[in-house]
Amino acid sequence: MTAAAATALDDLRAALPADVLVTEPAALEVARADRSGHSSTGAPLAVVEATEVAHVQAAMRWASAHGVAVVPRGAGTGLAGGANAGPGELVVSVDRMRRLLDVSLVDQTCTVEPGIRNLELDELLAGHGLWWPPDPASRAISTVGGNIATNAGGLLCAKHGVTREWVLSLDVVLADGELIRTGHRTVKGVTGLDLTALVIGSEGTLGIVVGAVLKLRPAVTGAVWTVGAFFSDEERAAAACTAITAARLRPAIMELVDREGVGMLAAYTGEPLAGAFVLLQADEAGAEEVARTAAAMLEAHGGTVEVTDDPARSDLLVQVRRQVHFALESFGTILVEDVSVPRSRMADMFRICRDAAARHGVRLPVTCHAGDGNLHPTFVFEGGGPDGTEPPAAVWAAADEVFQAAIALGGTLTGEHGVGTLKRRWLVDELGERQLALQHAIKAAFDPQGILNPGKAL
Amino acid sequence: MTAAAATALDDLRAALPADVLVTEPAALEVARADRSGHSSTGAPLAVVEATEVAHVQAAMRWASAHGVAVVPRGAGTGLAGGANAGPGELVVSVDRMRRLLDVSLVDQTCTVEPGIRNLELDELLAGHGLWWPPDPASRAISTVGGNIATNAGGLLCAKHGVTREWVLSLDVVLADGELIRTGHRTVKGVTGLDLTALVIGSEGTLGIVVGAVLKLRPAVTGAVWTVGAFFSDEERAAAACTAITAARLRPAIMELVDREGVGMLAAYTGEPLAGAFVLLQADEAGAEEVARTAAAMLEAHGGTVEVTDDPARSDLLVQVRRQVHFALESFGTILVEDVSVPRSRMADMFRICRDAAARHGVRLPVTCHAGDGNLHPTFVFEGGGPDGTEPPAAVWAAADEVFQAAIALGGTLTGEHGVGTLKRRWLVDELGERQLALQHAIKAAFDPQGILNPGKAL
Repeated sequence: MTAAAATALDDLRAALPADVLVTEPAALEVARADRSGHSSTGAPLAVVEATEVAHVQAAMRWASAHGVAVVPRGAGTGLAGGANAGPGELVVSVDRMRRLLDVSLVDQTCTVEPGIRNLELDELLAGHGLWWPPDPASRAISTVGGNIATNAGGLLCAKHGVTREWVLSLDVVLADGELIRTGHRTVKGVTGLDLTALVIGSEGTLGIVVGAVLKLRPAVTGAVWTVGAFFSDEERAAAACTAITAARLRPAIMELVDREGVGMLAAYTGEPLAGAFVLLQADEAGAEEVARTAAAMLEAHGGTVEVTDDPARSDLLVQVRRQVHFALESFGTILVEDVSVPRSRMADMFRICRDAAARHGVRLPVTCHAGDGNLHPTFVFEGGGPDGTEPPAAVWAAADEVFQAAIALGGTLTGEHGVGTLKRRWLVDELGERQLALQHAIKAAFDPQGILNPGKAL
Repeated sequence: MTAAAATALDDLRAALPADVLVTEPAALEVARADRSGHSSTGAPLAVVEATEVAHVQAAMRWASAHGVAVVPRGAGTGLAGGANAGPGELVVSVDRMRRLLDVSLVDQTCTVEPGIRNLELDELLAGHGLWWPPDPASRAISTVGGNIATNAGGLLCAKHGVTREWVLSLDVVLADGELIRTGHRTVKGVTGLDLTALVIGSEGTLGIVVGAVLKLRPAVTGAVWTVGAFFSDEERAAAACTAITAARLRPAIMELVDREGVGMLAAYTGEPLAGAFVLLQADEAGAEEVARTAAAMLEAHGGTVEVTDDPARSDLLVQVRRQVHFALESFGTILVEDVSVPRSRMADMFRICRDAAARHGVRLPVTCHAGDGNLHPTFVFEGGGPDGTEPPAAVWAAADEVFQAAIALGGTLTGEHGVGTLKRRWLVDELGERQLALQHAIKAAFDPQGILNPGKAL
């Protein structure tokens, strides 16, 4: 740190309680990386561990006065490098702002601080018979603020929607420290441009979300029915899944793991699993009929099928899907991609991933939210990771093919993880020059100095 | 028209097919008004009756070259003056662009031109067993582009969501005539800022929507159950409705008409109806149970209740709600307001409307989407209307009280109709100076000359 920077930091220290401004090397080191297998080139200046909105405002006032770049951060579970902070940058963390402030049964809303964990919120709301549907696979460790930053999806999107559909209002600290409240506490509201939706998914580039009014729905009651099915290959499995959608069934969850992913899971757990795996769950009234009809269709497409409403057995089937991530991690550094394609093109995308992996000699198991067409091709390789080294060139070459193919199929680079730092180079391929320019102009309207999460998302 | 304007218009005429540029006085007269009971101070310059995207682009290129203000327009069924065009303005109408371009069962998407009518689309999709849920009361005459311009809601929002939740991608002609495509054809997608959501509800101030990819869902199958109930007053009826929400029931429709509205309907139809009316419908699996449980709750709150799954009887009950608008229109000029409040404050809002009407000596029946807290207090008065005269001062005085109260209760000026010209003076009360300035900056990023629907929405 330069002497000038140290002096400037003293001003910030004076504006905050003693334990809020953190400069311990270990804390700075943590803030360099998220869970993308990537990290910044060096430690940031300091971390503001805010416990109140006023701390975030003070930090932004200081940062805008000194022209210092700010990286907003929650639990650091992102998969695109969006919360990674580097030299000269100030981290503003809302990790410790994790209270549930109110819940209304009749309004079916709650007000939260951004650091609250998804699972924690789920459990608190369950006590009221209410539910906030966004359900990232990382729910045990990820924050609601992180969902908002990336417009996170998860396993339940095809039926129950993504984060944007379940947020009514946001409290946002702007680049200069001023606080605005966007949106409404009401189900409907169209006064002015929809800044709530604009901030959702903006990955900390427009402001720092310090509070949110979430739209809730009644918790799902009644039996949940689960179907597990193994197929000889992923194209057949994908065809079965698209047939289920085309038959107008609405499972709550429909997931697909390719042969390579299942194989790695088998090696990790020691279970004798093989083939491509489809997991399906049906909820709400009519669940059994949906599950049985879907099971019959999976069988007709060549699957070996099991149907159950036994919670323990159901949980085992769900674990097949949920454990894949950990299995893959046990084989090396992982880089989780996140392309989304129209559901009719899922089988094509599986084939393209397999071909690209073979051509470039990389390992690329694929999991897929088959209810909505969102695939997670996951590169597994030696090296890279938190030490800041780059993935092998073959990984980027294969990733480039996967991204280009997704866009060509009418899809997108990122369904739910965000652009972060990792996907910026492909942004213009998807958006085009003019739309990208428009996005930069909107960014400039919010943050004329460009101090909010520079080099990310846009 | 000045000589310079006439010469300039010749350039536009040369750029368009003969029947696309319309200057007949009758057509210009129509474009002065929507269905808000309000009209502009005089006829616009001309109407571009576009049948292709290229016509809209040519019009915008011409308008930006000449600095002419443009009013985008569809079927002209708006209720806030947003499509009303005045002297010196060019109308760009997409009324004739009304094709359904494709439907995909497996992707559960369709591509439409903006002028397609809601009911027309509904009927076409029903043939595929699919459904686009946004359901404005005006569906027989209003366009999908109009839904997008205002983020329209309707009767089904509490359960099935508003327009924003059912649009994946937009084709938008910008102020300078360039065409961009926002969003994705996929269920999920988070590449870049969410310009789709930003354009939805922007009332033609950011660009002209010339195409949309809509997200569909399977059509609802099985019996629909309907409940009708009459109450001694609207507060009791509202309390019954909030109790149903708090009991975690999810009716597809829950509507409320106050005593004055029912009284005017009785006078209009000659039917002996009296009291405040609640209409409820339940759909999907479990419909009967939801309807019967809700009916018991309505009865416990003092309602006189009828439950039916007979389609003809059900239709009669629905008509009680749907005919109110026509009944009110038969008594004079109407000005339909559109406040939305948290559901817990609905009964308060009914009382406030009644008190404001009494204090100012105006007639103010109220209908309400009681499933989501969106009230339509509807002023009925002599004069005003398409001749351009203003509603009586007492109407605006009462409206001011209603708006201020809605904001104070944590609600909003407009739940689904938009701000248009009629509600602009209250905008800053809801948004605050800073957020309004931010909205203007975003508008300037899209439309630096300020030629797109000036004087509306913002």
